[in-house]
Amino acid sequence: MYKIEYLFSQKKVSCYFDAEFSDIQELLTDQQIVIITDEVLYTHYEKEIKKFPVIKFAAGEAHKNQSIVDYIIEELIKLGAHKNTFLIGLGGGVVTDITGYIAAVYMRGLSFGLVPTTVLAMVDAAIGGKNGIDVGVYKNMIGTIRQPEFIFYDYNFLETLPTKEWVNGFAEIIKHACIKDAVMFSDLEKYTFHQYKTDRKLIAELIEKNVLIKSQIVAEDEFEKEERKFLNFGHTIGHAIENLYGIPHGHAVSIGMVAACNLSEKLNNFSQDATARIIRLLTAYHLPINMEFDHQKFFEILKMDKKCMNNGVHFILLKSIGHAQIKFISLSDLENNIKETI
Amino acid sequence: MYKIEYLFSQKKVSCYFDAEFSDIQELLTDQQIVIITDEVLYTHYEKEIKKFPVIKFAAGEAHKNQSIVDYIIEELIKLGAHKNTFLIGLGGGVVTDITGYIAAVYMRGLSFGLVPTTVLAMVDAAIGGKNGIDVGVYKNMIGTIRQPEFIFYDYNFLETLPTKEWVNGFAEIIKHACIKDAVMFSDLEKYTFHQYKTDRKLIAELIEKNVLIKSQIVAEDEFEKEERKFLNFGHTIGHAIENLYGIPHGHAVSIGMVAACNLSEKLNNFSQDATARIIRLLTAYHLPINMEFDHQKFFEILKMDKKCMNNGVHFILLKSIGHAQIKFISLSDLENNIKETI
Repeated sequence: MYKIEYLFSQKKVSCYFDAEFSDIQELLTDQQIVIITDEVLYTHYEKEIKKFPVIKFAAGEAHKNQSIVDYIIEELIKLGAHKNTFLIGLGGGVVTDITGYIAAVYMRGLSFGLVPTTVLAMVDAAIGGKNGIDVGVYKNMIGTIRQPEFIFYDYNFLETLPTKEWVNGFAEIIKHACIKDAVMFSDLEKYTFHQYKTDRKLIAELIEKNVLIKSQIVAEDEFEKEERKFLNFGHTIGHAIENLYGIPHGHAVSIGMVAACNLSEKLNNFSQDATARIIRLLTAYHLPINMEFDHQKFFEILKMDKKCMNNGVHFILLKSIGHAQIKFISLSDLENNIKETI
Repeated sequence: MYKIEYLFSQKKVSCYFDAEFSDIQELLTDQQIVIITDEVLYTHYEKEIKKFPVIKFAAGEAHKNQSIVDYIIEELIKLGAHKNTFLIGLGGGVVTDITGYIAAVYMRGLSFGLVPTTVLAMVDAAIGGKNGIDVGVYKNMIGTIRQPEFIFYDYNFLETLPTKEWVNGFAEIIKHACIKDAVMFSDLEKYTFHQYKTDRKLIAELIEKNVLIKSQIVAEDEFEKEERKFLNFGHTIGHAIENLYGIPHGHAVSIGMVAACNLSEKLNNFSQDATARIIRLLTAYHLPINMEFDHQKFFEILKMDKKCMNNGVHFILLKSIGHAQIKFISLSDLENNIKETI
């Protein structure tokens, strides 16, 4: 186990890499600990988890809503959780998002730590302090930004991770490569999905590189004035189709990235060859590259996206692989372009 | 209209005194405005309010809960509210608390302003950024700390304020006098409830003095490490009996302050004469000074109070009128003392 610290605004966040869950005891003081997790993880890791008081709920994005928040708050009250109770969110992005949100609002704020157990949560959801819940089809409509005390990386959890969740994680990894790291993009072309899935050292290095990319972006722009917006690459279109069709987050982002590449060709002189490279890479990691969707419903949802204001959206385009740009596009322009390119 | 600015941590809050609601236009940019208010106020001030989009709900502490939050969020989505929408909370403490909370969590944070319309909200609830909702009998169990852009004081709203709400407001004013301002305590003894209710100049001065007291305390200690705890005088016992018996906040705080005076005599050499003065003052402002309550239920609720941890509570005692002190009292000591003194 070794530690790297990132400074976000006023708050230091410690990342513990190559750790084992049992080592988490060392990080905890004599505060009351409550673990928040989902039922699937609890079944897999009951022995380790049940040493602590646990609140668990059904796994999946469909449960990232106010009902689960209400339930967890009731359970916290039953456990006598207080301002000095320390929450640990152990799970994928749904668990880390909900834990962060509960920590932000319960008794006006508790301290918390995150133990991401999926590739996606390790490289993305657990980092940066954004938390939230969905309201119907609107993703992360309610939430805050609150940093955890620590993020704890135990790669053993990946052993029980279903292949489809590995695929979801690689969507965000490829996103990081597209917006920020052409060298990592080449690495992803060089190795295979299978190699990353089976070679512990290779995936550990890749995850740590991605933690660094996201943490640096967040550290520079925690409240998303400018550079943090790059992380929305593929997500403007992705978020809208994700909840509309209930498809996995990584699939939605992958489709969104290809759409954004097409727009980048049209509006930003992005090369056709680069789009082809990105499509090949996404395909190699089992990610879908397009789908038909209802444009009218899509735009209804897009209008309520947090990124959308003044009848337009700050859209993330690519200039080249590894270099992103923000461009304000009016909704009517976007509508015309999407009709033509998608 | 004149402006005083207070600096809380990183955030400047502007207080506009002696203002008229119609002047609020001057403070607003071309952002979308949404007013959040209660039905009683809407009925009284429909003409002024309905110039803006409005979300209104039934008045009263019983509605300060997640159901109302869910309702307001739905209405905001219907109105197409976005990250650059500006919320205005117009009402008493319930409205200002809920508006602040919605502003903290909707799309991870909107800007907002408050127009307190009760004495209590003007001198207390609207100031300091604490927001929250109740969970069953537990007061302000869920919430955050988020400062408004401005607080807008239009004393005309007091003309329709029921007498019982004036009484509630004076409980917090007397609290400020007890913990921080012996001179104001003497003023409150010199004038009468009727004089403050009918003399616009007198009540305006009193309110502005109280805004100053609370703002200074919050500015020094926004996140309640030390001095902000003084504001909890009367509230540890007060909060527990308020929701348990559904009595008005001011009544509960008044009863809580007398209980805290009795404890202060016992544990802090507070003089019996001073307690008698405080009881006389509370009575002059139509506030109750004691009630019988179920000690067992009381302690069950107290255990879940945010101020309670490590099996004890940071209790606010008085040293003399105008001077408060914090003392950690274990729950068992508190139980014994309350049995003897209340």
